[in-house]
Amino acid sequence: MKRLEGYRGFILERLRKINVEIGDEIVIEKNNEIIEGILMPRSMLGDDKHVVIKLRNGYNVGVKIESETIIRLKKKRKIKVERKIESIKKKALPKIAIIGTGGTIASRVDYKTGAVYPALTPEDLYAFVPEIEGIATIDTETLFNIFSEDMTPQHWTRIAEKIAEKIEEEYKGIIIPHGTDTMAYTAAALSFALQRTPIPIVLVGAQRSSDRPSSDAAINLICSTHVAVKAPFAEVVVVMHGSSSDEYCLVHRGTKVRKCHTSRRDAFQSINAKPLAIVKPNGKIEMLMEKYSPRREDREYELKAKFDSKVALLKMYPGIREDLIETLIDRGYHGIVIEGTGLGHAPSRLLKTIRRAIEEEIPIVMTSQCIWGRINMNVYRTGVELLNAGVIPGEDMLPETATVKLMWILAQTRDLKEVRELMLTNIAGEINPRTTHGTYLKSWIR
Amino acid sequence: MKRLEGYRGFILERLRKINVEIGDEIVIEKNNEIIEGILMPRSMLGDDKHVVIKLRNGYNVGVKIESETIIRLKKKRKIKVERKIESIKKKALPKIAIIGTGGTIASRVDYKTGAVYPALTPEDLYAFVPEIEGIATIDTETLFNIFSEDMTPQHWTRIAEKIAEKIEEEYKGIIIPHGTDTMAYTAAALSFALQRTPIPIVLVGAQRSSDRPSSDAAINLICSTHVAVKAPFAEVVVVMHGSSSDEYCLVHRGTKVRKCHTSRRDAFQSINAKPLAIVKPNGKIEMLMEKYSPRREDREYELKAKFDSKVALLKMYPGIREDLIETLIDRGYHGIVIEGTGLGHAPSRLLKTIRRAIEEEIPIVMTSQCIWGRINMNVYRTGVELLNAGVIPGEDMLPETATVKLMWILAQTRDLKEVRELMLTNIAGEINPRTTHGTYLKSWIR
Repeated sequence: MKRLEGYRGFILERLRKINVEIGDEIVIEKNNEIIEGILMPRSMLGDDKHVVIKLRNGYNVGVKIESETIIRLKKKRKIKVERKIESIKKKALPKIAIIGTGGTIASRVDYKTGAVYPALTPEDLYAFVPEIEGIATIDTETLFNIFSEDMTPQHWTRIAEKIAEKIEEEYKGIIIPHGTDTMAYTAAALSFALQRTPIPIVLVGAQRSSDRPSSDAAINLICSTHVAVKAPFAEVVVVMHGSSSDEYCLVHRGTKVRKCHTSRRDAFQSINAKPLAIVKPNGKIEMLMEKYSPRREDREYELKAKFDSKVALLKMYPGIREDLIETLIDRGYHGIVIEGTGLGHAPSRLLKTIRRAIEEEIPIVMTSQCIWGRINMNVYRTGVELLNAGVIPGEDMLPETATVKLMWILAQTRDLKEVRELMLTNIAGEINPRTTHGTYLKSWIR
Repeated sequence: MKRLEGYRGFILERLRKINVEIGDEIVIEKNNEIIEGILMPRSMLGDDKHVVIKLRNGYNVGVKIESETIIRLKKKRKIKVERKIESIKKKALPKIAIIGTGGTIASRVDYKTGAVYPALTPEDLYAFVPEIEGIATIDTETLFNIFSEDMTPQHWTRIAEKIAEKIEEEYKGIIIPHGTDTMAYTAAALSFALQRTPIPIVLVGAQRSSDRPSSDAAINLICSTHVAVKAPFAEVVVVMHGSSSDEYCLVHRGTKVRKCHTSRRDAFQSINAKPLAIVKPNGKIEMLMEKYSPRREDREYELKAKFDSKVALLKMYPGIREDLIETLIDRGYHGIVIEGTGLGHAPSRLLKTIRRAIEEEIPIVMTSQCIWGRINMNVYRTGVELLNAGVIPGEDMLPETATVKLMWILAQTRDLKEVRELMLTNIAGEINPRTTHGTYLKSWIR
C-alpha cells in the first residue's frame, strides 16, 4: 500500500494513478506555472481539493488541483533517502538520540480516527527536514505515541529512565518530541528526575502539524538539533519558536517555562526568568543567562525518576468551598498545591480545613495564579495566618512546576519537615533567589 | 484620642508630645535640612524609627527620627479639610460616588491585628489625595471592609445592588475601591450583573498601601476619578497603573482583565483584547478601542445581581484523577469550568466522568490554562470527543471570567440548552469574535 495519508476522493485517485506516495518529489503544472516539491501528508480535516507540498525553501504550500492540472513524479523518495542515510553515516557527524513520545510534531494525518503516522524513523526525518543531515546523525526510538494531555507522572518516569539509558550510550544530546499541551510539565519533571545531566536534554514540539503550511515543526527540530549537538549547557530545556516569524527559537529552562497561548507558534515563554539562550536555524547559539550547568560529558548524573501522583493542584476563586479540600483529605491525597490569589492568599474560611490537612501530615504549598511574581505571605494577615498554619510558600515557582516538584518530593519522603526543606531548596533552577529585571510580560505599549 | 495609627515606642511619644495626628502638616528639622509634609499613618510591620510624610510633590518619604531631630506642627488637618470641603461643594464640581469594599487602597495601618482604618471619608480622601478636590465632589459609603480573597458571589450581589441604588441618585460615575487579589473576578461579575449601565463603574485598587513611599494608591484614585467624571464610555472597568512608573493608568474592560503579577504596580493586564483606554493623571483620556458602550445618562440599565456559587473551577494537570470531578457531581455542584490544556483539552481518561456530569445536567465549560488565545476543540481527537460529549467551548474567555459567567447564568436557568446558548453569547465583551492583533504578551526581546 502506497502511503498517501490524508488524501481522499478525486486527488487520491490522481496521486494513485501516477504511483506516487508521501515523501516523493513531484511536479505540478498549472496555468503554465510549474511548482516542485516533496509531497506532504494532509490532515483528515482538510478538503479534497488541495495537495500540500514542501518547497525547496522549506515552506509548505497547498496547491489546488483541478481536472486540467498535471501532476508528475520527479523522484522517488525511498531510494534517495536510503542513499542519503549511507552518505550521512560516512560523514561521522555528532550522534544524537531522538525519543518519540507523540504530539503534533511527530504526528501528521488523522487525529480523528487515531490513525497517527509516527514519522520518526531517520528516513522520515531526513526526508521532511533535510537541513538536519548537515548537523547530526540521528538514532530514533518511539517510546510511546500519546497526546500530551494524556501524559501522566508514570510516563515521566519512563521517559527519564529511557533518557538515562541513552546517556550511557554516549550521545551528544537527546531530543524528546512531545505534545505542546503538557510539555512544560514534563520538562519540569525531567529537570527534577535527571540531575547533573552531562548533555542537553531537549524537549521540542510543534504548535501546527507538519502538514500545515505554517508549521513550526521544521525550524523547531532544526534548532533543537543544534542545541543537542553543541550547546554549551547541559540542562533539561524546551526549544520552541521565539517569535511569530521563523527567525529564531528560544531555549527555556525546563522549570521556568509555560505554554501561554493556545495556538501561536511563540506560545512558550520563560516566566520570572530570562530564556537560557537564543538559537538560530543557522546554528548560532547566543547565551542570555550567565549561569548554567555546563556540558560535561563525563559527569555522573543522578536519576530519581519516581513521582507520587496523589497530589492535587487547586486553583482558588471567589466562592470556592471547603468541601474541595475536605475531599482531598478524605480521599487520601498526599499533598496539595494551592494556586492562590495575589501574593499567596486563600479565603480565610478555608483556613480551618487547611490546618486540618497539615495536622494530618498533608503538605500544602502556596503558589499564585498571577503567574508572574513571587509569593510573599508576610504582607497581609491572611498570608501570615496561612504561614503560621504551616503552609509552604512556593517562592517564585510556577504553580505547574510546584505541583511536579511536590509529586517528585513525595515519592522520596512523606516527612513534613523534609518535604518543606526540599520544597524551599532550589534544585533545578525552579526558584530564582532574586527577581530578574526585565522578565515580566511587556505590558500594552502604544 | 489622637489618631497616630502605626506609630509606636519612641516616635509615638515624640508625636504625642507636640500634639499632632495623622493628616497634620508637620516640619522636620534634621542635619540643617527642613522637610515638610503631611503626617501619614504607618504599617504595623514598619520599624519604630521613621515617620512617613507625604511631600508636596505627592511622594511619600520615610524620615529617620533621632533624639536630636526636631519635629514641629505646621498646620492642623481638621479645620483645613472642613474648610476645604465647604469650598469644594461651592465649586459645584461633578458628583461621584465611592463605594468602599476594602483592600489595600482603603486600608492603611495594621494588617496583623485587623485594626484596619477605612480612610474613606471625603475628609480622608481630600487630605491624602488633594488632587481630587479639583476634579469631583465625592460622596463615600463603606459597604463592607474585607480582604478581596474573602470576596464571595454574595458580596458581588451586594455591590451590584448598591451600585444600582447609586445610579438612581444621578452621579456622573461610581468608583469601587477593591482589594487587588480578586478585583478582576468582581469586575467580571459586575459586568454581567449590571448591563447597559448609563455611567462608568470603575474598580480601583492599590498594589502597595498608601503608607508606603512607592504606593500607587494616589495615581490610581486620581485616574479613576477622571474616568468616573468624564469618560465617554459607560462600562464596568478596572483602572490601574499601566507601567511601573507613575505616567499613566490603563482602563481595562471588566471581563477581559487579569492580575498577572503578585507585586508590580502594572500587574493588571487586558487579555485577548486591547485595554479600553489610557488615562493620565492630568485627566487626558485616550481611547484605544473603537467600540464601546457610550455614556448615556438617561439609559435604562438592567440589574441581574444573583450568582449561583455551586460552580467549580478545575485546573487540569498531568495525573489529575477522575475522583475530583466525581466528587463535584456527588456533592451536587451545578456547573464546572475546566481550565484545560492547549486548545481546550482534558485527559481522555476523564471523558467518562465528564459524560456522566453532562448526563446529570451539569454544564461543563472548557477554557485554557494558556490564558492567551482561543479554545478550538476541532483540531485534535480529544477536543472533538469532548465537544461530542456536550462540553461547551469557552471561546477566548478567561477561565476566571467563564467561572463568574457560569455562576451568573446558573442563577437564572439550570436548563442545559439555555446555559449553552448564554455561555456562547457575548454579553459584556467577554467573547471577542475575532482575535485582536497585538494583544499577546510581548515575548522576550533583546
